[in-house]
Amino acid sequence: MIGEILSTGDEICQGSVIDSNSAHIAYLLNEIGIAVTRHTCVGDDMDGLIKILSDIGKHADIAVITGGLGPTVDDLSAAAAAKAAGVELEFNNEAFLFMEEYFAKFSRKVPGSDNKQAVLPSGAVPIVNSCGTAPGFIFNIGRCRCYFLPGVPKEMEKMISRSVIPDILAYRGDEKSVTLRKELSLFGLPEALVNEKLKGLDAMFPGVKLGMLARFPVITVKLTAAGIDKTGLVHEIEKAAQWTAEQLGDKVFSLDGRSMEAEIASLLVKNKATIGVAESCTGGLISHLLTNVAGSSDYFLFSGVTYSNDAKKSILGVSEETLQAYGAVSEETIREMADGVRRISGASYGLATSGIAGPSGGMDEKPVGTVCVGISTKDETAVYTFHSPFKERLSNKQIFAICALDLLRKQLLKDIT
Amino acid sequence: MIGEILSTGDEICQGSVIDSNSAHIAYLLNEIGIAVTRHTCVGDDMDGLIKILSDIGKHADIAVITGGLGPTVDDLSAAAAAKAAGVELEFNNEAFLFMEEYFAKFSRKVPGSDNKQAVLPSGAVPIVNSCGTAPGFIFNIGRCRCYFLPGVPKEMEKMISRSVIPDILAYRGDEKSVTLRKELSLFGLPEALVNEKLKGLDAMFPGVKLGMLARFPVITVKLTAAGIDKTGLVHEIEKAAQWTAEQLGDKVFSLDGRSMEAEIASLLVKNKATIGVAESCTGGLISHLLTNVAGSSDYFLFSGVTYSNDAKKSILGVSEETLQAYGAVSEETIREMADGVRRISGASYGLATSGIAGPSGGMDEKPVGTVCVGISTKDETAVYTFHSPFKERLSNKQIFAICALDLLRKQLLKDIT
Repeated sequence: MIGEILSTGDEICQGSVIDSNSAHIAYLLNEIGIAVTRHTCVGDDMDGLIKILSDIGKHADIAVITGGLGPTVDDLSAAAAAKAAGVELEFNNEAFLFMEEYFAKFSRKVPGSDNKQAVLPSGAVPIVNSCGTAPGFIFNIGRCRCYFLPGVPKEMEKMISRSVIPDILAYRGDEKSVTLRKELSLFGLPEALVNEKLKGLDAMFPGVKLGMLARFPVITVKLTAAGIDKTGLVHEIEKAAQWTAEQLGDKVFSLDGRSMEAEIASLLVKNKATIGVAESCTGGLISHLLTNVAGSSDYFLFSGVTYSNDAKKSILGVSEETLQAYGAVSEETIREMADGVRRISGASYGLATSGIAGPSGGMDEKPVGTVCVGISTKDETAVYTFHSPFKERLSNKQIFAICALDLLRKQLLKDIT
Repeated sequence: MIGEILSTGDEICQGSVIDSNSAHIAYLLNEIGIAVTRHTCVGDDMDGLIKILSDIGKHADIAVITGGLGPTVDDLSAAAAAKAAGVELEFNNEAFLFMEEYFAKFSRKVPGSDNKQAVLPSGAVPIVNSCGTAPGFIFNIGRCRCYFLPGVPKEMEKMISRSVIPDILAYRGDEKSVTLRKELSLFGLPEALVNEKLKGLDAMFPGVKLGMLARFPVITVKLTAAGIDKTGLVHEIEKAAQWTAEQLGDKVFSLDGRSMEAEIASLLVKNKATIGVAESCTGGLISHLLTNVAGSSDYFLFSGVTYSNDAKKSILGVSEETLQAYGAVSEETIREMADGVRRISGASYGLATSGIAGPSGGMDEKPVGTVCVGISTKDETAVYTFHSPFKERLSNKQIFAICALDLLRKQLLKDIT
């Protein structure tokens, strides 16, 4: 089955907004074995819309179209779809009912200005939108089954998972088909090398599809298996995930696609442990990541972003002698920072970073990209030095932060009793 | 002139990578008055590429194509372009020279495996790539002047600004045309309302184009004027920027499109001031933003991410009585946090946040989205309470952080002597 994706809207066509919807849709279609051959974006222009919809009707089997379902004059998708299929627009009672149900949640009636959203091509089947006012709809143009969805990512994402994918499976007679997913998150390998290491997967596990999503500096490897033999698929995808984890070794930090901070969170909770952080070069990013996890106040006690040497001394108790003799970026200083923050926060773990994020501040023996990490526990304090190849400040902060959290993760795993 | 954008590559078509290149290119083309009517993305498939390139050759005047210029077998752009135009591929000496120059920077010769990157359609004019190995090229297909660029964003962005835009201007006889830009950054208005407030701009300043870029929770308004009468354009765009600033009032925090943290940085430097931060609900995000600015160690002394009440007491010196009587999210506590961090850091300004980012933790009188901000100076301590409409943790952290920095900005402006 051939799939196409069409995003509409001047804001995307003229570059005011990056189209992230299409990647999301492509990924989900690809997962259930629909080959996405083309994405197109056109502006809010009736002729342009009719032309591309007619073309999609000739070439594709399945299409997902986003945007242009709102109440204003530049929302043209329903009208363009009707023209492309040669049918009339009509008021759709079921679509209006969906809108009534949505507004009823807020004890409101559908405002008159929104009525247009229930005017759909004749024969369209509305799709419920549980978190917005504009319903979507299913409508055939030529040989293609078209799914029209709002452009708002939150609304679109819910609707495609809940309504569109199940409908596609039913449409092609795959109601009993199940899709299984496994995700592995890793840090410390470039994408090209991950690809290289996983080259044999296709041949060994022909039923498993490999995908990859890079969110610097973390890569998520996605495995998908779809079919009707659920037991067989579970076996196949588990074996593929195990093989993948072996290929990537200790670079993998999560076997279920979680973020580094979520992984740390569950390990801290499991260990009944708490954490205090002393950040120099990471400038607050480690704390920001840790506190992005809901419930983090249970284990995250304190972080001192001690940028100045004075703060390192007065807040963390790093000694003047150490700073003088070895400098702020040294294993000696990081040891005192990690111990200091563990002591003053009363946490069971102290994590500390000090380094040179750049772009300036590098020296011959400590170039930009150098980072020292310290982990203090009640039994011992471990210190590490790493070098990132990057010269750019934000990239280095990101690498330093994930690198420090990954070392903490390994320590937490060791300490599980 | 009609413009089109084509991005190529399985990784985009299948949704592993979000296509951010197209928005960047569309924005720059739009700025010089080229109407971008369509973006398309196709995978690494020869037939699909030839078809879309032939189609572009019939309909567009200018096209920018990204990706597929590398050395591997799935890099098909040059071959597809040659087929679409009905010419042969040939070894391009100038392109090879560009590659030699690139490798010479690292005292290396061009590796044999990269030779393919210099094999271009007959008649193509190579475009230098100063930060990567694959040269781009200009090549006419049908009526369309096509610019082929690498898909790596860093390389593409340099090449389009340095080579493609000037070539387009020369091609249409606008060598003397200048493009002027003004950007205003604002916080605290939704995009729809900004649009509404700026509705009259087109009519009042017909030579000025309006664009908008939303990076939650900040919006950047972009004004562009292009033409050959530079003096007139300067006058026109300045007046348009002034009118825009008046419409948006004190929501505008930068008249030259800078980030909030860059704006704060220059105000702190101007005031010869330093800053200490005490973060509760923002969890380190304010520190992370402030330290993203190179040179921030000159004025950023310390941040205490005091998540626990114990840390608020022991590190910042907030009194047990205040916490007991008013709670952690209160103007009384935030006052002591701001004063405390100013005192212990020795900074001239103390900035503090405490609030409920969610998703849980809200109460009737202090719902999720409540934030208290405190600013302590040597003369006075100001405290504020705001409510965000969001229930989602990361969105609230972002709003709280920018809100606190915006209050600090206003204080710094007041204090400029």
